[in-house]
Amino acid sequence: MMSESIELQNVLDTFEDLWSPRIVTQFNDYDVRVAKFGGEYIWHAHEDTDEFFLVVDGTLTIWLRENDEERSVTLPKGAVFVVPKGMEHKPVASDGASILMIEPTGTLTVGDRHEDVPDYIDATTGHRLA
Amino acid sequence: MMSESIELQNVLDTFEDLWSPRIVTQFNDYDVRVAKFGGEYIWHAHEDTDEFFLVVDGTLTIWLRENDEERSVTLPKGAVFVVPKGMEHKPVASDGASILMIEPTGTLTVGDRHEDVPDYIDATTGHRLA
Repeated sequence: MMSESIELQNVLDTFEDLWSPRIVTQFNDYDVRVAKFGGEYIWHAHEDTDEFFLVVDGTLTIWLRENDEERSVTLPKGAVFVVPKGMEHKPVASDGASILMIEPTGTLTVGDRHEDVPDYIDATTGHRLA
Repeated sequence: MMSESIELQNVLDTFEDLWSPRIVTQFNDYDVRVAKFGGEYIWHAHEDTDEFFLVVDGTLTIWLRENDEERSVTLPKGAVFVVPKGMEHKPVASDGASILMIEPTGTLTVGDRHEDVPDYIDATTGHRLA
């Protein structure tokens, strides 16, 4: 178990990489991850799980593709949103953002369906804290 | 699905009740709840689930009972902690705090084992937003 609480900002201060989540803690079979977002991610979908987002700092836009239509949801600092399983989505943080995400342990950041993964995106199930 | 993002502070601004969680959103079979804490809660334990806490505002102390010993963990604003399933715990927020919690839908706030529930504590699985 965790022996002490963890301040999210302290974890965020340990790295600069964009789109490369760190696993802050776990509960049941879920990971709590934090990541720095900057610019545009790729369209992708998680077939078997919803994805929970909470904006720790900055502003996050999530583009959603539903019935061949695209729309976006904007999350200011302190806002939450859930992307339903199977839905194609594309996070964008033009001015940078720090994000907390929760999903089942082992969930790949780029999902089960995705565009080509450019070099600046880390396809990972999350990195343990050093 | 959620049509728009939800700002946690906007939800917190809709009620004053202490120890009475509102369900902000759900993902998979989990509820995301926010509550205002103030003073002392009761000792209780959830036998079948871990419990995730994130401090949105204020400071939270969680007392833990393990092998007949008690210790406390303090969470400033922006900190997270997970209470393992089966562990007796007692949240305290002497100066008040706003807390986000995540646990399986249907989880009772007072757990499966608990002290007598005083009138000021709402034994609930969480209230839907109005």
